[in-house]
Amino acid sequence: MRSRARASSEDGLSGEAIAVATVKLWSNAEAEADARVSAVFADIRATRGSDVVNNFWRGLANDPALLERTWSALKTVMGPGTLDPLTKELVYIAVSIANGCPYCIHSHTAAARAKGLTEGQHGEFLAVVGMANQTNALVNGMQIPIDAAFRVEEGP
Amino acid sequence: MRSRARASSEDGLSGEAIAVATVKLWSNAEAEADARVSAVFADIRATRGSDVVNNFWRGLANDPALLERTWSALKTVMGPGTLDPLTKELVYIAVSIANGCPYCIHSHTAAARAKGLTEGQHGEFLAVVGMANQTNALVNGMQIPIDAAFRVEEGP
Amino acid sequence: MRSRARASSEDGLSGEAIAVATVKLWSNAEAEADARVSAVFADIRATRGSDVVNNFWRGLANDPALLERTWSALKTVMGPGTLDPLTKELVYIAVSIANGCPYCIHSHTAAARAKGLTEGQHGEFLAVVGMANQTNALVNGMQIPIDAAFRVEEGP
Amino acid sequence: MRSRARASSEDGLSGEAIAVATVKLWSNAEAEADARVSAVFADIRATRGSDVVNNFWRGLANDPALLERTWSALKTVMGPGTLDPLTKELVYIAVSIANGCPYCIHSHTAAARAKGLTEGQHGEFLAVVGMANQTNALVNGMQIPIDAAFRVEEGP
Amino acid sequence: MRSRARASSEDGLSGEAIAVATVKLWSNAEAEADARVSAVFADIRATRGSDVVNNFWRGLANDPALLERTWSALKTVMGPGTLDPLTKELVYIAVSIANGCPYCIHSHTAAARAKGLTEGQHGEFLAVVGMANQTNALVNGMQIPIDAAFRVEEGP
Amino acid sequence: MRSRARASSEDGLSGEAIAVATVKLWSNAEAEADARVSAVFADIRATRGSDVVNNFWRGLANDPALLERTWSALKTVMGPGTLDPLTKELVYIAVSIANGCPYCIHSHTAAARAKGLTEGQHGEFLAVVGMANQTNALVNGMQIPIDAAFRVEEGP
Repeated sequence: MRSRARASSEDGLSGEAIAVATVKLWSNAEAEADARVSAVFADIRATRGSDVVNNFWRGLANDPALLERTWSALKTVMGPGTLDPLTKELVYIAVSIANGCPYCIHSHTAAARAKGLTEGQHGEFLAVVGMANQTNALVNGMQIPIDAAFRVEEGP
Repeated sequence: MRSRARASSEDGLSGEAIAVATVKLWSNAEAEADARVSAVFADIRATRGSDVVNNFWRGLANDPALLERTWSALKTVMGPGTLDPLTKELVYIAVSIANGCPYCIHSHTAAARAKGLTEGQHGEFLAVVGMANQTNALVNGMQIPIDAAFRVEEGP
Repeated sequence: MRSRARASSEDGLSGEAIAVATVKLWSNAEAEADARVSAVFADIRATRGSDVVNNFWRGLANDPALLERTWSALKTVMGPGTLDPLTKELVYIAVSIANGCPYCIHSHTAAARAKGLTEGQHGEFLAVVGMANQTNALVNGMQIPIDAAFRVEEGP
Repeated sequence: MRSRARASSEDGLSGEAIAVATVKLWSNAEAEADARVSAVFADIRATRGSDVVNNFWRGLANDPALLERTWSALKTVMGPGTLDPLTKELVYIAVSIANGCPYCIHSHTAAARAKGLTEGQHGEFLAVVGMANQTNALVNGMQIPIDAAFRVEEGP
Repeated sequence: MRSRARASSEDGLSGEAIAVATVKLWSNAEAEADARVSAVFADIRATRGSDVVNNFWRGLANDPALLERTWSALKTVMGPGTLDPLTKELVYIAVSIANGCPYCIHSHTAAARAKGLTEGQHGEFLAVVGMANQTNALVNGMQIPIDAAFRVEEGP
Repeated sequence: MRSRARASSEDGLSGEAIAVATVKLWSNAEAEADARVSAVFADIRATRGSDVVNNFWRGLANDPALLERTWSALKTVMGPGTLDPLTKELVYIAVSIANGCPYCIHSHTAAARAKGLTEGQHGEFLAVVGMANQTNALVNGMQIPIDAAFRVEEGP
């Protein structure tokens, strides 16, 4: 692969950051040299109104088709719909906490804050996540059978 | 332990349901004979405006102190606050999906529907949960380093 | 929602199966009445050379856009590429085992067998999965630091 | 325990690396002073044709019986059989991603590369892992019942 | 594969039980016809002082080498040592709850009861497991950095 | 939020440690200025007989009610009961390993050592955890049905 050492500080990548991934993180220069990667990076910047393309996309760039599919799906799923944007971010963080993904927790907590999450809401959110993990464990430990009342009701 | 076979159909417990737990599921009669359990069951019914006490609480009744602490904490955490009730349920389900807890998914999906979750919102919610699990895996697989931009900003 | 009770035996859905999902499983008749769902079901049948559309897709049909995106991505990801089809199925099962998804384990074990997985290979595969889960736990328990030798090498 | 500070740079252990484990990482000198540990380290080197003994084994050395059993089982499971070595490594990484074990992801991605994994295959593999995690979540969220067709067929 | 339908009721296997595994569960007659499987089953019976060989081993019998390794390791790990047998069972159940493995929770809760676990201890154990899952989530959600005080101390 | 940069070295917080959390870690000075946080910190110090208040509580301080509930529950659950304190710590670590929570593994391994865990017991504990994770995966992979013998027995 091309040398990751060539990633320059203008990409906002520190030497240490580059060293710990299992794949190359594409620099801006490398991205610009690939039409598909370049197009996705441009759309990320336009959609977010920011020049920053975070490391996740720089890693996915190694497989342009996967980059395109993932960005397209994310843009659709996290875009306007019937759930408000902040609720979607909280759901995202909740999953990331349960899965133990530090990067995902950091990036989506930052996104939630950008969408208005207050300190008070963050604390309340964490309390719900903690409670859910606790009761999940209690339920699993006791192997509680599902109440008939929780089944989806039959229609007429 | 007292025979679980004594749980009668009036408790809404089927024979099969009783058979699969690792603990006894307390019948109404058994609950009424224990002051602490009885008090919690009464508060659950009053809080929810329903006579149904679902199996989770009937299992926790084997440890009255744990039953009291769990119900008290759940009532507080899921009660009124700065996040709306439906958002809290969605966060709860998201955690339960990631942890693979069928009972929890059923009970909180039912609760979310009772709080107004529409079919359209449910589909959108599942899409977010699916996307989060997918990107969690991609991030973990590539071991993406955390962007400096995601760090909590220093105050003044 | 439309009554799930209308799903007839011709869809291969037993009454019990219908009862345990948190969403409606679409019958063939319901699928045919929705142009987008109908098109995806037809493509699933054509791609697999079988009339069977398994329950996963019947559940996703509640959100036609999610159904379309998921089928499209799955078809691409599991289709021809640089990894052989059986290897992809084994990776899929391994993830499903770690995540504790019984449906996924059943469906992809069946798919792996259809692609030639032998009993001997299945046993060997399970041994690898078991070993990986064991050493994951040992590594996490000891919090082993990553060897410098495992870092991605710098290019020339 | 004996001082970890005695591990010298000749073991390829940095001070930072030593500091983060919950157990001592055995230096070469310490390993040589224990007959059982020494024998396993020698077999690791001989089997892999390399002088490097990675940190995982240096941590397991604290319990020589566990070290012996784990190395013996790993050598057997990952050795020649009916699945090709690269497929086994991919299965190993897939499990490690789902379990969130950074060390395991790094070490087995390095091993997979040593066994011929190309960049294209790596991207395709990550796409399968991402897809499996996504559909696992969708299946769990909808609590899809297992299709009768996926059951193991009865013999004649 | 040989017909699972031949498993007779004398093996304690119900028809339903056989139907849900992804592998054949070996009957006593089948086990007796294979020298390696037969020897392991005999050792399980002798070690446990019971004629029952539970389904896990009947599934592993499909790969005699995996059966032998797993039984041998389990017998060693769960056998006499420096931790008492009940503590080991509780650790086993705790892991099984976190991983969401119903079979494992049932089998090891039964084993813990056989080793003296009281109802009171079971409730207290579940409370610890619930608390650990809750604080794990809170820690992950806040991404708490490790205190210097928790690092393993250097020796003299 | 108030500047985390004000946390002084007297709190035992390094600059790096502060930088990686998603929430502010409260300094001693900040804690003292809040009556509820101050009271919990004082009780932590009194209960443990140490001036150290570890980072977990400094993060929870952002939500005083969550801090109070969590400390109160933890103190009760991990306090005197029918299970010995070391067993409780081992159960806690086992859950934390399965969930992949490095902070929790470090803090509770340190606590277990303070309660008398020997190197020999630690190795044996890790072997049980590894074995449980391995067999969990084998059971899930084979989808082993639960033996009738493991069901909770009916009473008289």
